[in-house]
Amino acid sequence: MKRTHYVSELRPEMQGQQVVLQGWVNRVRDFPEQYFVILRDRSGIAQLTVEAGNPAYALAGELRGEYVVEVTGTVRERGEGQRTDAYATGGVEVIPTELKILNRAVTPAFQVDGSPVTASEDIRLKYRYLDLRRREMQEVLRLRSRVQAEITRYLDDQGFINVETPMLTRSTPEGARDFLVPSRLSQGEFYALPQSPQLFKQLLMIAGLDRYYQFARCFRDEDLRADRQPDFTQLDMEMSFVEQGDVLDLNEGLLRHVFQAVLGETLPTPFPRISYFEAMDRYGSDKPDLRFDHSFTEVGDLFRGGEFKAFSEAANVKVMVAPELTRKQIDELERVAKQNGAKGLAWAKRGSDGLSGGVSKFLQDAAAELISRTGVQEGQTLLFSAGEWRPAAEALGAVRNALRDLFSLAAGGPKFHIGWVTDFPQLDQDPETGTWTYMHHPFTAPHPDDVALFGTPRQGEIRAQAYDLVLNGFEVGGGSIRIHQPEVQAQMFAAIGFDEAAARAKFGFFLDALESGTPPHGGIAWGFDRLIMLMSGASNIREVIAFPKNNRGLDLMALAPSPVDDAQLAEVGVQVRTTE
Amino acid sequence: MKRTHYVSELRPEMQGQQVVLQGWVNRVRDFPEQYFVILRDRSGIAQLTVEAGNPAYALAGELRGEYVVEVTGTVRERGEGQRTDAYATGGVEVIPTELKILNRAVTPAFQVDGSPVTASEDIRLKYRYLDLRRREMQEVLRLRSRVQAEITRYLDDQGFINVETPMLTRSTPEGARDFLVPSRLSQGEFYALPQSPQLFKQLLMIAGLDRYYQFARCFRDEDLRADRQPDFTQLDMEMSFVEQGDVLDLNEGLLRHVFQAVLGETLPTPFPRISYFEAMDRYGSDKPDLRFDHSFTEVGDLFRGGEFKAFSEAANVKVMVAPELTRKQIDELERVAKQNGAKGLAWAKRGSDGLSGGVSKFLQDAAAELISRTGVQEGQTLLFSAGEWRPAAEALGAVRNALRDLFSLAAGGPKFHIGWVTDFPQLDQDPETGTWTYMHHPFTAPHPDDVALFGTPRQGEIRAQAYDLVLNGFEVGGGSIRIHQPEVQAQMFAAIGFDEAAARAKFGFFLDALESGTPPHGGIAWGFDRLIMLMSGASNIREVIAFPKNNRGLDLMALAPSPVDDAQLAEVGVQVRTTE
Repeated sequence: MKRTHYVSELRPEMQGQQVVLQGWVNRVRDFPEQYFVILRDRSGIAQLTVEAGNPAYALAGELRGEYVVEVTGTVRERGEGQRTDAYATGGVEVIPTELKILNRAVTPAFQVDGSPVTASEDIRLKYRYLDLRRREMQEVLRLRSRVQAEITRYLDDQGFINVETPMLTRSTPEGARDFLVPSRLSQGEFYALPQSPQLFKQLLMIAGLDRYYQFARCFRDEDLRADRQPDFTQLDMEMSFVEQGDVLDLNEGLLRHVFQAVLGETLPTPFPRISYFEAMDRYGSDKPDLRFDHSFTEVGDLFRGGEFKAFSEAANVKVMVAPELTRKQIDELERVAKQNGAKGLAWAKRGSDGLSGGVSKFLQDAAAELISRTGVQEGQTLLFSAGEWRPAAEALGAVRNALRDLFSLAAGGPKFHIGWVTDFPQLDQDPETGTWTYMHHPFTAPHPDDVALFGTPRQGEIRAQAYDLVLNGFEVGGGSIRIHQPEVQAQMFAAIGFDEAAARAKFGFFLDALESGTPPHGGIAWGFDRLIMLMSGASNIREVIAFPKNNRGLDLMALAPSPVDDAQLAEVGVQVRTTE
Repeated sequence: MKRTHYVSELRPEMQGQQVVLQGWVNRVRDFPEQYFVILRDRSGIAQLTVEAGNPAYALAGELRGEYVVEVTGTVRERGEGQRTDAYATGGVEVIPTELKILNRAVTPAFQVDGSPVTASEDIRLKYRYLDLRRREMQEVLRLRSRVQAEITRYLDDQGFINVETPMLTRSTPEGARDFLVPSRLSQGEFYALPQSPQLFKQLLMIAGLDRYYQFARCFRDEDLRADRQPDFTQLDMEMSFVEQGDVLDLNEGLLRHVFQAVLGETLPTPFPRISYFEAMDRYGSDKPDLRFDHSFTEVGDLFRGGEFKAFSEAANVKVMVAPELTRKQIDELERVAKQNGAKGLAWAKRGSDGLSGGVSKFLQDAAAELISRTGVQEGQTLLFSAGEWRPAAEALGAVRNALRDLFSLAAGGPKFHIGWVTDFPQLDQDPETGTWTYMHHPFTAPHPDDVALFGTPRQGEIRAQAYDLVLNGFEVGGGSIRIHQPEVQAQMFAAIGFDEAAARAKFGFFLDALESGTPPHGGIAWGFDRLIMLMSGASNIREVIAFPKNNRGLDLMALAPSPVDDAQLAEVGVQVRTTE
């Protein structure tokens, strides 16, 4: 390599040393008889000082932003008044003895020299190769790469086997929509891109691999919300002969290693574990942000049989203490509550003597007990949510998150709060049709104590051996112990209304495999893009993906998708649909 | 974890120690008053000895092959006459104190207990979860995983950044056929699955990432030959500010590390480098197997102007020394020569005085010189190939490989011979139409000394800065320095008949990027499946992929591809083609 140093390695102690640097012209400052050329490579920036009389002086005058140059020069410590702390190499400059322009550049569509980016996201995506020159973007990609490498190191050391599962697989029309790939060799038939390697990783356990992992690309053709991509990456893991605690322990060790090695952050151990019931009941979310508390208190019993129908007739009344709120803030929070299914947001303020404002006149009998149970202080506000347990809790949970954003409640807590939510329900019932479906996926194992409830009116109470990994209020992972007994799998399918024929049609090969000597097993998948987003502090998923799609599924740089010749379609036996 | 040991960790020194083991019943031997149960986990096998009177005796009688069991027991050193060297734990047995059947199993479709597999490949693929229980298969998958982990470790340490490039990208109809994915959100338009990340990795260099790698899944919808898969994995790398030697050096270091860490094999350094011309001229192949020599000698000059028209009128006459051959062997080799474009295979044997047999009567004048130049010994055979340089060499190259297989010529050499083939031609001319195309791909940089030949009659002589990595006669990698100057890229496109409009239509965004400050860069892609095949000694690519397609592109286990509902097709705006 010609390069002797990345620019950020330059230090005053190197005074007089000859170096060869290669990179981009970040900026040129043109003074009388002198050019200051800021040279950028992936490590940072450094200043070249080219004075009149320097053999490179004429060429320095030709330099423009984003030109690619190679410079041979001598390191010089800067004088007292010329040093800057604005960047790491601000104590030195390089005096070129030779300068080469390796390539010229047109004027970039937007500046990538460290000045704030004002270009729209669409422009940034169209010129992604420029956008990725920005320090922030490069740091995210390096972080992502470092995390992958540390995960690989850790899991390899722990005896996990990295296996690549198929990308062209069978369409199983349930859950999300498949991306389809027409087959040329089997005309009229289609592959599907994998939604996840779920069945394959279980097959690897059936095959006796014992410990598996993979960074798996997964595809779901869903309508893209603001923060979704048609394909995404998950860290996929599976282990045999384990119980839930084994999977959680392994993952805690892995996460601690990664946060320590990459960010220098020590995660406390063991991670807090909270049941789904408690998470919903106290925080109104199955992925509660526990960087701050503001938990709920159940106070329905105080109103039972009382006059205030809104509370007395509700199955549950949850209350949360909020800081002092303006009328405008209360309106904003009520809007959030309504967006999340509540009819309104009851409130009362603690004044110097008791409660006032909002619904306080209906609370008089309960006021002392409300104050006592919640510990609400003078000036603070009580926010109430009444109704069925889950919707009441969820609405107040949304208000809790809005409160966090309004008052930066999470700012005072730990930078990263990571924990487990456990004991999810096995089954979920559609409130309108009454039909049952799985909460996680149909291969999730029920708690052994609850298996007898399958097929009874109480099957909604069956706890799954399922767990989610929650970081700062985001679900960054989810997994379960899987069903390994064919008879339990049959009960599960029956519970969700798959008769045996339907189950066999969809998963026949898997059911055969299940009968061929399946060990107890379980695993997890991490939402890798989201984890990196949180670790890097990026604002959305697209910021942690080198070449993302926009929220219409378009690659604005390569211009994909695109029309293709009909001849190309004919080869794979399909045509664009003409009828409606 | 309940398990205290993998079975292969059991040793005589553990006499008396209590262990918990989990695994599969590999086999049960039923003796009077005694069962020997061979327990298998991913580490190997060990024997449980269950005597009448043991509390587990009754349950042991229920065990069948592939049942999943957990056993708690005591390690016992075997007596003198009972030890076996047939497996690693043959010096011990485990006496169960508790035995649990964790799962039962139906009778497997074929035995996976270590006995030779007689099932057809189709059956093995249909029951892949059984096939992967076999030690050979597990060892390959572990090797593959270890290699990935060591590559990751090495490249991460060297500052390479692992970047995931898009899986849903733009169709560029050239080279191989694309797999297409209909877009639902942009009806009538299609994504293509990537044939390689070539443009994206170059864009990452333009973006200043400096060093990139990825284990990239690549897709090519080609007619499947015996040893192809519709999708495959490549280790993809790219580096900026490098020359060819830098890429080669880095790769040699990486390969040495991997072979040492995973196989304990020390590869000699530096790797031999041979030009394309020399490889073709001396071995008749651009991927010569150099575990053995048998190189060619050019002897055309000996016949120039002579009577033997077959040689005198040929541009080249190549000769190779073979061992003593039977008539039948010569016939077989001639068949190979003909399959590879030769009209026949001329031969002559060195007898006690001069040459005899075959074409020897036409060689009399040249016999002494032939013997002297080739060093052919008494009993050995000379094999000739005459014609234009490339076809003559290629035909004899195929004969050379057939000779290797016939006489196990490679067996005496090193287990692994790895080296570089360099200086490929930049352009390739269709012998029939006379049209020019690229030899590697259109972004390959020509040798700087040869750029002036573009557009001249001598453009066929332009050397590319391209290199292939060749292991034991297989191409396991290929790469090049890329064109970084827009004007050279334009010359290259012109040379292969792309006018500017055509080039822009296909690669417009990339050409824009090329003008935005592109550093010199180059890289390589390793055929990862093939490398693992060679490292593991597997006989074909399917043996190193957990869930491969067969050679009709079918997944015989999951049954993909498959028909899908028309409603599913309607959603993505396509229909099965009805007209022919």
